Amino acid sequence: MCPPPDQPVTANGSGNGKEEMVPIVNDGPHISSSTNGQVKKMNENVAEQPPAVKSHKGLYGRASDFLSNTSNWSIIESTLREGEQFANAFFTLETKIKIAKMLDEFGVEYIELTSPAASPESKAHCEAICKLGLKKTKILTHIRCHMDDARLAVETGVDGVDVVIGTSSFLREHSHGKDMTWITKTAIEVIEFVKSKGIEIRFSSEDSFRSELVDLLSIYRTVDKIHVNRVGVADTVGCADPRQVYDLVRTLRGVVSCDIECHFHNDTGCSIANAYAALEAGATHIDTSILGIGERNGITPLGGLIARMMVADPEYVKGKYNLSMLRELENVVAEAVEISVPFNNYITGFCAFTHKAGIHAKAILANPSTYEILNPADFGMTRYVSIGHRLTGWNAVKSRVEQLNLNLTDDQVKDATAKIKELADVRTQSMEDVDMILRIYHTGIQTGDLKVGQSAVLDKLLEKHMPSRDASPNGSANGNKRARIEGATA
Amino acid sequence: MCPPPDQPVTANGSGNGKEEMVPIVNDGPHISSSTNGQVKKMNENVAEQPPAVKSHKGLYGRASDFLSNTSNWSIIESTLREGEQFANAFFTLETKIKIAKMLDEFGVEYIELTSPAASPESKAHCEAICKLGLKKTKILTHIRCHMDDARLAVETGVDGVDVVIGTSSFLREHSHGKDMTWITKTAIEVIEFVKSKGIEIRFSSEDSFRSELVDLLSIYRTVDKIHVNRVGVADTVGCADPRQVYDLVRTLRGVVSCDIECHFHNDTGCSIANAYAALEAGATHIDTSILGIGERNGITPLGGLIARMMVADPEYVKGKYNLSMLRELENVVAEAVEISVPFNNYITGFCAFTHKAGIHAKAILANPSTYEILNPADFGMTRYVSIGHRLTGWNAVKSRVEQLNLNLTDDQVKDATAKIKELADVRTQSMEDVDMILRIYHTGIQTGDLKVGQSAVLDKLLEKHMPSRDASPNGSANGNKRARIEGATA
Repeated sequence: MCPPPDQPVTANGSGNGKEEMVPIVNDGPHISSSTNGQVKKMNENVAEQPPAVKSHKGLYGRASDFLSNTSNWSIIESTLREGEQFANAFFTLETKIKIAKMLDEFGVEYIELTSPAASPESKAHCEAICKLGLKKTKILTHIRCHMDDARLAVETGVDGVDVVIGTSSFLREHSHGKDMTWITKTAIEVIEFVKSKGIEIRFSSEDSFRSELVDLLSIYRTVDKIHVNRVGVADTVGCADPRQVYDLVRTLRGVVSCDIECHFHNDTGCSIANAYAALEAGATHIDTSILGIGERNGITPLGGLIARMMVADPEYVKGKYNLSMLRELENVVAEAVEISVPFNNYITGFCAFTHKAGIHAKAILANPSTYEILNPADFGMTRYVSIGHRLTGWNAVKSRVEQLNLNLTDDQVKDATAKIKELADVRTQSMEDVDMILRIYHTGIQTGDLKVGQSAVLDKLLEKHMPSRDASPNGSANGNKRARIEGATA
Repeated sequence: MCPPPDQPVTANGSGNGKEEMVPIVNDGPHISSSTNGQVKKMNENVAEQPPAVKSHKGLYGRASDFLSNTSNWSIIESTLREGEQFANAFFTLETKIKIAKMLDEFGVEYIELTSPAASPESKAHCEAICKLGLKKTKILTHIRCHMDDARLAVETGVDGVDVVIGTSSFLREHSHGKDMTWITKTAIEVIEFVKSKGIEIRFSSEDSFRSELVDLLSIYRTVDKIHVNRVGVADTVGCADPRQVYDLVRTLRGVVSCDIECHFHNDTGCSIANAYAALEAGATHIDTSILGIGERNGITPLGGLIARMMVADPEYVKGKYNLSMLRELENVVAEAVEISVPFNNYITGFCAFTHKAGIHAKAILANPSTYEILNPADFGMTRYVSIGHRLTGWNAVKSRVEQLNLNLTDDQVKDATAKIKELADVRTQSMEDVDMILRIYHTGIQTGDLKVGQSAVLDKLLEKHMPSRDASPNGSANGNKRARIEGATA
């Protein structure tokens, strides 16, 4: 639950008259839920962190959240592995090094690299990145459950190896053709070999949500007994839903004592929610990629996971990660793989903090928390309130009137708003248009030429004082509008 | 859960040699989970539908799913209301009519239009759309909980009215300034007035997940008693997670007998998962917009909800909606609001059915269900297997060899694959490049000039027979690649 703020905040608008949007500068305290009143650390391989003692702010929180790790989790950033499987991805070593260094600076706990067995260049890249001397971030590589791959991997200098094998009956049939006995035997061999080299190892099933539960739990228990660092659960095809994830991870949490890593594809839109459900059920590590790039339409996006986790525990997230870098990280990857950041991208999409409807704009001006769960300032972003359109309301217009230092009564503002809406019914009005209407209205009132309700008089004043404009609501007007919006949020 | 397929399917590749991707034409039966073994209809206002009797295919399904409506739900399509609150949206009447007619043909149960109280043009548009005589789709308009708005709405000719009011303590404080007593009194007045006109009415709270539970349940019970058609739950700020949604809707399901509509914003990436959790808990109607457009980064996208629900019950979804129209609907809206369809869009994104990694490509060629939970053919789409890159595998190359009617042994295919990977380490290889390498390799084997393992000999043959190429892995090569990918999936 997301409780109300302790104090309401008055936002001060400041506009330069050159944008269609009104940037609101002063940010109030932002609100978030805390589902994790108590942290239970079940992992014996990682040093205990002091429990985050926090009041349970929720209005009707759950008593059963003792399993939850939503305030105690790590990122395994896989842009340089899963992301390389994105249709457009072809990362040069230079690009990989740039991304790896930025992710280190951002603060992710791990990065995962393409298997050195994939190609000679992949191996060389892996070795080069291991030599970078990253400050915080550990380096993993991702291999098939096979001794040949394991031998190559441990020679590259990585801090850990992520092993994966398909455990569902039809991956076993159509992919590698091995049975569970073979999988278990090989897994033990690979794990013991990698551990003997003194580096971390994770064992993951593939397509876990279409695998037999007993097979899964059996092999996880086996590898946990020989002290694998993490077991991995993967929704390889993107079919799982949050309740399935919660049930499976909670069950697994009772079977193994090691960390639990989760990997979620996004084919059916649940990759972020599934990651959250997994953490609620006791998972410890989430796989991400920048902008979610990966096979098909990808996996849990780094920015989307951050947005979700900010609601659960903003201080924890802000303490771990350099959030103002998110936008630049996404821009670098988008350029490297030749895509545009989606218009609706979490946090950094051009409209993520844009408010338009009249009732939204009014309330946002009174208190940003009314229609925002995330605070744009936490990410180096700004919010905008759009007012030059047919859905605008007089409260937003009043705020603009005050910014322009015009002196109008509420009745006069309402009267001017009616004219803005009337004109915006024909064509979206730019901020310059809105400002000019308000100034002409104000002058009319001051000189006594105009009174409230004299719409025809106002039309004549506007006709006289406003430059002739293309009134058609078509491409060019919209094009200008969009350019302004994008420029304003850049 | 997503069970294995009954029969594996052999996919037949067919390539025209002009694309980098291998389109796989023959689709196997696709797999989906059925969480809804039994349908319980709790709504007294809507005629009973025969329960969908289906075997419970899940490997470890839940016994508690009797509440679930995942095989019995409706769409309230709000592109022309919520979508109009998207930063870039300015819909002309012509565009609105086009979208409304297409949504009718697609088969949504309802469309929702901007309030006639928003502006004179909004009112005129609403009246014009009501006169279209849509075949299947009912028309709603969305108003504030106020008699003035209600009087305007019922005059437009709509089939129903969606009323909304903020119930959270700080929307009450910072938005409309009314207490729960006033809200309840006004809600009753508006509902009785609208019902007296013989049209449908929904009453929704706003920001439901930051409202007091007892306040919420109290007003919902009150409006249910006077036979409102639907109550609405709205995550206005996008803060809710699926377990919160499940808990609230399940509780509400026990309090009211009317339908339950849910509206989820996507600020923290849960809008699709929350919709699914709501249906699992007994909700009946989900609000969507095309591409998810709306305030900030929007709401549950129509295509994303379809993707999610196809996993739960593909036959139900295919029976209700004209799925092959999805792509065109999205294109029309994207053009109207001047955005690009995101690269990773559900179902229709250019990479949604593209497979790249060697182990994925191999298994997909054996059985599409191994790495796909959705069948692209259901949406008039095609899948592609990418092979000209460093992550490629010999199974995918073998499939291409067979398509080209070349005669190579497995050892020879593996040998040729090694060369493709070596070249792709420098630059992604186009399908023309891959085909030429394979043809030259094949000729070399046939003439006896080449034997397995003679990499240097093959280099000389390639040098002699392939046109000189720009080997740099930079912009132009990638640019060509992307153009081909996009062209291939257009």
